[in-house]
Parts: sequence; C-alpha cells; structure tokens
Amino acid sequence: MSPGLSPPREVNFATPRSFLTVFKSNLKETFFPDDPFGHLKNEPLISRKAKEVIRYFVPVFDWLPNYNFGLFKYDLLAGITIASLAIPQGISYAKLAGIPPIIGLYSSFVPPLIYTIFGSSKHLAVGTVAASSLIIAASIEEKVSPLENLTLYVSLVFTATLISGLVQLTLGVFRLGILVDFLSHSTITGFMGGTAILICLQQMKGMLGLKHFTTHTDCVSVLRAVFRNRNEWKWQSAVVGIIFLTFLQLTRFVKQKKPKLFWVSAIAPIITVIVGGLFAYLAHAEKHGIDIVGHLKKGINPPSINRITFDAKYISAPLKAGVITAMIALAEGIAIGRSFAIMKNEQIDGNKEMVAFGLMNIVGSFTSCYLTTGPFSKTAVNFNSGCRTQMSNVVMSICMLLTLLFLAPLFSYTPLVALSAIIMSAMFGLVEYDKAYHLYKTDKFDFCICMAAFFGVVFISMDMGLMLSVVLALIRALLYVARPASCKLGKIPDSSLFRDVEQYPNASNIQGILAVQLGSPIYYANSQYIRERIMRHVKHEQSVAALNGSGDIEYILLDLGAVTSIDITGVEAFLEVLRLLESKEIKMMLVNPRIGVLEKLTITKFIEKIGKESVFLSIEDAIEACRFSMKSSRGKDVADVNVA
Amino acid sequence: MSPGLSPPREVNFATPRSFLTVFKSNLKETFFPDDPFGHLKNEPLISRKAKEVIRYFVPVFDWLPNYNFGLFKYDLLAGITIASLAIPQGISYAKLAGIPPIIGLYSSFVPPLIYTIFGSSKHLAVGTVAASSLIIAASIEEKVSPLENLTLYVSLVFTATLISGLVQLTLGVFRLGILVDFLSHSTITGFMGGTAILICLQQMKGMLGLKHFTTHTDCVSVLRAVFRNRNEWKWQSAVVGIIFLTFLQLTRFVKQKKPKLFWVSAIAPIITVIVGGLFAYLAHAEKHGIDIVGHLKKGINPPSINRITFDAKYISAPLKAGVITAMIALAEGIAIGRSFAIMKNEQIDGNKEMVAFGLMNIVGSFTSCYLTTGPFSKTAVNFNSGCRTQMSNVVMSICMLLTLLFLAPLFSYTPLVALSAIIMSAMFGLVEYDKAYHLYKTDKFDFCICMAAFFGVVFISMDMGLMLSVVLALIRALLYVARPASCKLGKIPDSSLFRDVEQYPNASNIQGILAVQLGSPIYYANSQYIRERIMRHVKHEQSVAALNGSGDIEYILLDLGAVTSIDITGVEAFLEVLRLLESKEIKMMLVNPRIGVLEKLTITKFIEKIGKESVFLSIEDAIEACRFSMKSSRGKDVADVNVA
Repeated sequence: MSPGLSPPREVNFATPRSFLTVFKSNLKETFFPDDPFGHLKNEPLISRKAKEVIRYFVPVFDWLPNYNFGLFKYDLLAGITIASLAIPQGISYAKLAGIPPIIGLYSSFVPPLIYTIFGSSKHLAVGTVAASSLIIAASIEEKVSPLENLTLYVSLVFTATLISGLVQLTLGVFRLGILVDFLSHSTITGFMGGTAILICLQQMKGMLGLKHFTTHTDCVSVLRAVFRNRNEWKWQSAVVGIIFLTFLQLTRFVKQKKPKLFWVSAIAPIITVIVGGLFAYLAHAEKHGIDIVGHLKKGINPPSINRITFDAKYISAPLKAGVITAMIALAEGIAIGRSFAIMKNEQIDGNKEMVAFGLMNIVGSFTSCYLTTGPFSKTAVNFNSGCRTQMSNVVMSICMLLTLLFLAPLFSYTPLVALSAIIMSAMFGLVEYDKAYHLYKTDKFDFCICMAAFFGVVFISMDMGLMLSVVLALIRALLYVARPASCKLGKIPDSSLFRDVEQYPNASNIQGILAVQLGSPIYYANSQYIRERIMRHVKHEQSVAALNGSGDIEYILLDLGAVTSIDITGVEAFLEVLRLLESKEIKMMLVNPRIGVLEKLTITKFIEKIGKESVFLSIEDAIEACRFSMKSSRGKDVADVNVA
Repeated sequence: MSPGLSPPREVNFATPRSFLTVFKSNLKETFFPDDPFGHLKNEPLISRKAKEVIRYFVPVFDWLPNYNFGLFKYDLLAGITIASLAIPQGISYAKLAGIPPIIGLYSSFVPPLIYTIFGSSKHLAVGTVAASSLIIAASIEEKVSPLENLTLYVSLVFTATLISGLVQLTLGVFRLGILVDFLSHSTITGFMGGTAILICLQQMKGMLGLKHFTTHTDCVSVLRAVFRNRNEWKWQSAVVGIIFLTFLQLTRFVKQKKPKLFWVSAIAPIITVIVGGLFAYLAHAEKHGIDIVGHLKKGINPPSINRITFDAKYISAPLKAGVITAMIALAEGIAIGRSFAIMKNEQIDGNKEMVAFGLMNIVGSFTSCYLTTGPFSKTAVNFNSGCRTQMSNVVMSICMLLTLLFLAPLFSYTPLVALSAIIMSAMFGLVEYDKAYHLYKTDKFDFCICMAAFFGVVFISMDMGLMLSVVLALIRALLYVARPASCKLGKIPDSSLFRDVEQYPNASNIQGILAVQLGSPIYYANSQYIRERIMRHVKHEQSVAALNGSGDIEYILLDLGAVTSIDITGVEAFLEVLRLLESKEIKMMLVNPRIGVLEKLTITKFIEKIGKESVFLSIEDAIEACRFSMKSSRGKDVADVNVA
C-alpha cells in the first residue's frame, strides 16, 4: 500500500449532530449503560413489550415460572443453613446496634421476602451487617442514649432504616449507580478492615463482661474505656469467651483446609449459641458474672410504621446514619452479589439491586426491622450450600418465622460473651491483609486510599475515615483528568505505525515534523496543562534540532484519536496554541479527531480557522501532505532563485 | 507493505519501571508541567545554574539588566495613564469594601512595587478589584459592622488580605496552580457577570444618596433596601449621578468606535473625579444632599502589621474572605495576564504569578493595603497605552506616592455619587452577554455552569454561587471520567486504518472479530461501566451476527491506544471481562497498550494470564494473528474429520 498512490482517505466532516441528539445519547450512556431494552426495539407487540419490561423490573417473574422441585431441593438445604447463621448473627448485630436482640431476628424475616421478589442476584443472602450496625449506633447515640430512652432510640433506628431505603430506592430509580462506583474497592477494603478492628475492640466489653463503656467508636477511646474499668473485668466471662472463640476459629481453620467442610463453620455459630444457652441455663451463669441476652418475646414482627419520627430535634442523626449506611450497604451488597455472579458467569444489574435493597429497607422499617443488605459471610455460605435461586431466602424467612413463633424464648439464655465471640470471629475474616499487600505491591496510590480509610476509621471515626478515603480517591480521579498523558510519536521501522518514542525507542523521528498524541478529554481542568505541554514538546524538539543541526520543525501533528471530548476552554486552549505556533511559523495539523471532538471544533469554527485541508484521518496521510508542501515550497524557493 | 510478509512488529514488554521512577515522573508532570529547568540539565557551571534559577524565580533580574531609556519612555506614559485610573478606582473600591478611601490609594502604592520584582507579566497593572472588595465586605460585615467598630473592621480586612497572600504564596510555592485550573472560564464569566449586576445594584445607594442600606449582597435584599427607603431618595444626587454615568458611557462608546481613542475612556474617571470635586467645592454640594468622600489624610502608608488579628472570635470571617478572594483574584489575575501575553506571543507562568500575587498581598497587609490583583480594566489600559515592561507599575507607584504626599486632601471633595457612577460604568463592561451566548451556542453544559454562577451570585450569595458552579463543573469532570467513550472499529476501505464505525459508516466489519476502542484512563469510577460496555458491544455484535447468519464472534480486540492509565479496580474489571468472555468462548486480545498500562497489567500478572502472544502493536497485526489461528483451527477440524 503506497500512500502516494492511493486516494487520500477523507475525514468525515458531517454536519454536527443537534444538541438534543448528543444530549440524549449521553444521557443514555450515563444512566442506561447496559441498554436493557435494546432488544425490544424491533418488537411489534406492545403486550409482549410490557411483559418484558415487567420481567426486567421485577426479576421474580423472570425465574419463578421456570422454578421446579429439582431446584427447590438445593434451595431448601441452603435456606436452612443460612437460617442457622441468621439467628446468632441477628441477635449479635442487634446488640452491636444497641437495639433489642429480637429486632435482629425480625430483620431476617421480612426483608428476605422482599428481596426474593425484586432482587436480581441468585446467591445473595439477606441479613444485617456489623459495620452498618455500628455506624447506626455511633450516629444515633450522639443524640439519644439507648440506656436512657430505648423507645426513642429504636424509633430513630427505624427512621434511619427508612431513610436508607429511600436513598437506595431513589438511587436505583434514577439509575445513579454511578455514585456507588465512586466507592472504590480500595476504600471498601480499608473501611471494612478498620471497622472489623473497631468491632473486635468493642467486643472486649462483652468478653470481659463490662458494664460501663464508651459511646465513641475510635480505637483510643475504646481501649481507654476497657482499661479504665479494670475493676469490672470478669475472668469467668473471659474464659468462656476464649473457649467459644477458639472453637469458632477452629471451624474456620477446618473450612480453610477442606473447603468441602464449609458447613462446619457455617453451623458453628448456632452451635455456639445453643451450647452457650444450655450451659447458661444449667449453670445459672448470670450468677457467676456471665450476662445473658434476657427475655425474648414470642411472635412475629409488630408494625413499626407509627414509630417512624421526623422530629426536627433528632432528625440529623438518623439522616446521617441513613445516608452513610445506605451507600455502604449498597457498595457491599452489590460488590458481593457481583463477585458471586461472576463465578457463575452471570451478570448483576447494580441499579436493580439498589431498587431491591431500597424496597426491602423501606418495608423493613415499617415492620420492626433495621438495616439489611447482602452480608459477605451469609452470601458465601448460601453459595457454598448450593443455593440455586432467590428461593433460599424464602426458606430462611420461613425458618425465622417458625423461630419467632415458637423458639424465640429459648434464645434468651444465650450468654452475651458467646455473641461477642461470634462477632469477633466473623470480623477476623474481614481484615484482608493479603489484599492490602497486593495493593501495596501493585498500586501505591490505591494502597494510600485503602490506608486512609483504615486508619481514619480506627483512629478518627467511621464516617471521617470513609470521607477521607473517598476524597483522596476523588483527588486522584481529578488528577488523572487534570494531567492527561501525552507523548511524542515516532515511526516504527518497516511499518506505517506511529508509537510513543519513550515506549518504543527504536521509533524514528520524522524530518521537520513533530507528531504528538494527546490523551483523555480536553477541557477546562487540563486545557492550560495541555497548552503548556504541547509548547514544551515543541521547545524540546527545537532544541534537539538545533543541537543536531537538523532542519527546523515546520509542522506539528496532533493525534486526537484518544481525545474523547473537548469543551469550550479546551477549544480556546487550541486557539492559543495555534497562535503561539503561528508566531514560530509552525503549522498545526489535526489527525483523526473523533466524532464528538470534530463536532465541537466545527461549531466553534476552529476547523474553519485551520482549514479542512489540515485535518487528516491518519498520521501517514498527514505526513504525506506535509512532505508534499515542504518539497513544493522548497521547489518554489529554488525557482525564485533561478528567475533572479 | 503486506502484513503477511513483514515480520510481526513486537510489543515492548520491558520490565516495569520502579515505583519511584514512575512516581517522580508523575510528580514532575503534575507540578512542573513547564519543565522550567529542563535546559539546565547539561549546564556544568553551578554558579551559572544558580543565576538561572534566581532569574527564573525573580523575573526582575530577567528584564532589568536589558532595560533602557527607549523602553522607559513607553512605560512612563502608560504608568501615568494607569495612575490616573488608580486614584478614582482606589477610592471607589475602598468605599465598596467599606473601608476608608485612603486605603484604596495606599493599595496602589506598595503592591505594584512588589509585583514589579516578582511578577512575570509585562502588561499587568496592579490594583484593587470590585468583586473581591464586595466579597470582603460581605464576609466581614457578618461579624463586625464598619459603622459600629471601624478600627476592628479594618483590622479584619488587613487580616483577610494577609490570609489571601499566604494562600496565594503557598499555592505558588507548592505549584498548585492546578487548583486554579478548576475555576473554569465559564464559572468566571458567570461569576463576574453576576457580581457586576450586584455591584451595580449596590451603587443605587450612592446614586440615590441613601443613608440606610442592607449588608446582604443578593439582588432581592438590595432591591428591597432601595425601595423600602424611598423617603431617603435624593433627586439632586440622582441627576448628578446620571450626568456622570452618561459622560463615562459616552467615552466608552468613543473607545469602541475608535479604538485609538482608548485614552479618552482611560482618563474619563479622573476627569469625573476632578470635575465632581470642583463642582462639590464650588456649589457646596454637601448642603444640597450630595455627600462627599470627606477628609483624606496626607502621608504615605502607615505600617499595619500591628493591626493584624487572629482573634478566634472573628477569625472565621477573614479566613473565609481570604481564601475565596485569593482564589478569585488568582483566577482573574492569571487569566488576564495570560490573555494579554498571548496577544504578544509570550507565555505567563501561573505559579510564578501566584508567588508574586502572594508576596504583594502579604507585604500589602503589613503596609495598610487591602487585596490587590491584576484588574482587567487597568491592565487593558496599561497594554493600550503601550507599556513595555513591569516598570509602568513603578511609575504608577511613584505617581501614587506624590498623590499621597501632596494631593490627597484635594480628593476629599469627590462626591460619592461620582464614585458610584465610575463603579457602575466599569461594571457594565463585565457582563459578557456575547460570551454567554457563545457558550449557549457551542456548549450547553458550559452554559449551565456559567448560569449557575450568575444566578447563584445574583440570587443567593457570592460564595454560594461560586461553589454551585464549581461543583457543577466538577460533576461534569467526574462524568467525563465515569463514562469514557468507547466505540466499535471497522476497517476503512483500501487502507490499513481502523476507525469508529459510527463516524465512518463505510468502514467494514471484520469476519468473526470485534474490535473495540476504549478511551480515557480505566479505573475505579468507570471500571464497572467499561465492563458493561464491552459486554454490550459483544452482545450487540452477537445478535447482529445471528440476524445475518454470519459466523459467531471468536475474538475481541481491545484497542488500548487511548487508555492512558489503569488502576487495580480497572485490572479487576478486565479480569471479569476475561472470565465472562471465556464462558462465551471468545478470546480477548489487547492492542497497543501504552507504557503505564502495560506496566500495571504486567505487575498484576494480567499479561501472564492472557499470554504475551495476545498483545499486539496494531489492530492489523492482531487480525492477522486471529485469522491465522481461525484458519488453522478450522483446518484442524477438517483434518480430524478426514482421519475419522
């Protein structure tokens, strides 16, 4: 292919699309990146279209019609297994949130049913989580102490749950999953690790049987509270706690060694609760300094819609707790659903999950449940127990119903120290040293973001730690935007390829021409930088040319293939570059502008200014054109001399 | 060039650079994009290096040694012209800031001298500005009223000036010019326009001779204050004001028609002041309801370092005023310096300007000056009067010195209404209808950002308007980042070029292969999107293939030429895509990864996973390889059949 002979490939200077077209397409790309109804475009039947849309929004219609007994067998087993985990976890995390333990049991009854209808993950098991429980407690205790006014405190917890649900639903309906994307994996890793440490420290209260404790969550306050109240330490409690903890950790160890025996660790918590309860009942443990959960009322969830309060005096606390936990619960739930779906080569729709989580928390807040999401431990057990569909959540829900109706009082003998052991054991798994080390090895900045979350949570407070990390990650994102990479291109020998000369040192210069590739969108935050950078490339090239005695730069080719968009300030920067280059008698040429960029350059008349003949489809074409005019201008000089 | 015959061009799999190398190079790119000492690398003499460095940081050493009388002639004329503007502007804007008018005159004496030493713009004229004056007044009046405790009020203004200076110096020293880049032109346009409207409305006080007024700056409060105090309106004041305003606007009109007569409008304010003063003196104007400036003390700036106060009770006000005005003054001053430099094909270093502005405000705050920057009107007059170097600022400074020593008392007869007319006339020029219309025509989002600043300033408050606009611009930047463009590539006929099929509809598909170009950095905020987008490209391609009955997709080529960097979450997304593709029996190949991306993919072992043989330098090479293996695998099938 000799470029001299082939007809010049033309740049497509189509008239710019109208604002509405571009806006619509951008809107669609931003909020419907998965194009859910793409395949319905050519569907003529409206009834079928409607059916498809309903099936899309309410996933239960998608899988229930094909459900059969063969699948149910698996779901039954998985459902019973996660129910056995839900009882101890429900009681434990409710204690962590400072609310009556029964609410923890209620929370595993209603929300799983809602999720079954609207949720799109087949493996997610609904339940309460430790981190969010602690955040709720920390936020609401700022306004009301559960010891002083439990009724109000619980009302505020329900209010926070409603707010969480509303936030999640809104995000889902307006397809703002994009916001959750800004909680990066590194942030979540650090945050979870930090929270796990905090929660473990908090369990010192239960392990040592302390009566007095701090409402602060940071590490220093908690340790101070533990050591200040040394007179309250009870060795009996500690001994029992360590025994339970050792048992739980052993079962984890078994699971790690033989993944097939995962069920051993899955049922360990309920065994701990049962054994602990029996022991407490038989040994009258409460008389020996080992506190028990205390009275648990029989019966299903009472309605709590009348307990929701928007009293201006307190609303700030549930508002803060609601918004933060909504985001964290979403980030955690969606990430977990996704990672299990990928193992089975399925896809999870983040926006649908948000709607499901939102509805489940809204309905939950009306039926005496507090915040639920898809916790990692429960979901992993569900997955490993071989669940096939969302039906396992229904099975768990029915188990909980039976528990609430008949067995609840039996759990009132559960020793608090057993709950602390269960929480601590669960938390150990959440500190991901390996992942942090992997981050350190592969990306130092991601590691910093992770550590900011970790140390922020441990030493300042949970919300500050999270904020710190998110802001750091945002600054990084903005730095990416503000300092886009650009590089000088050289010709790879024996080819028509032009590549970064730094990356491919054997790429050769082009006599009299400087080719620069710009990256990323060009706009206000980086346009000054790009202008400086282009001029620096020119300056550097000129100084090299002066050193080598080779000819001056006559042309600069800007490869815009990687520039996805440009704004007004960007175009102005280009105009400035054009003017600066003109004063140096260098001609600017554009190569391969993409559709959005070309449109903006046309509307702003930049193309008119440099001329359509200065825009090329490839660097090769541009160089060919430059060489031609360089030769012809030199030829003219010679001709002039001859005439003289 | 036939790709079948040429040896395969190799991707450079160099060992990744060390973290420190990458970090150093990123740091340099972020903070020293202009590479100021690049040319000193090969300089052996340390003394000469030091000299160069000093010349770089203190620009006066750069131009003063070559200064001569020929240049001075021009600077003298320009200096006298801007001094004639500095006197009325100094008095007017000081009134706007609620401080004694003499401080306005002081502020044109010391800061210009400092700028002459450290400033890098040859055309910038130093002076006070209306917008910042109003912000200072609005912020500090929240804490202290100038009517009740003028001494404290003025002290806080000096403190705010010091804080501004410190912020500017810090930004300059740490080369954080990048922060100012986040104030986009659209924001500044809207903000300036809104502020101009507010300031004009505020002048109703002076024009109507009102005694009582509001301390709020928003449009509604100001209009209410004007109409509530109708009983204070004085027609004499209004008549005189309108006469002055008409005169000033006429001179502007003359300038617009005949740009050569710019000096008519340049000296119009001082004429207004002189004529107004004479009139007030002769007609005893203050007896007829026309207030005058009042006593102005002879003598140069008294020291004010002892008046700086960091009293915790008041500090929040000067802190807020200082930080906001620092940023706005920088954005305005640097943008103006830049735009005039470009007219003369010179370049301005933003970081150096920040240092100069910072030093000038710090020294200013110690010598009874308040915030100064490079105002547009004064700089334009300086430029048009033919200034050659920073020396014109020295001339202005000397003129101000003489004024302060001998003429100050004469200006005490200046009617306030004349000052209002001067301010209003100056403000009319700052509402840039054309620019807003241009934004509307070319970029709707930029227009929204501009309007957010404009309406926010007019109807809420100056700082909220600015914030609103900056946040909107940031959201846009983050959206750019979160939704990078990607496109399907097709082969341009008769070439080896691959381009966006949407942009070049004649580009043809490649049988069994899908080539997708990704844009922008890939990282946590967009990695989920990119994964979805790639899978959607695949799904769409498969459905088209099914419709046409053509063969299935066997390969997907990801063109990474436009991907400038990738983070851990991005790599994880790639892994997910790889797994999803494997389940569909599609092979992933990478084309032209750039140096940073290839390094990250190597460290994280992604390259190991897909194999080096799946990475290519160009799409052509990749297709060649795919075709070869497609053919060979089919050939093998045939062979198997034959054997059977």
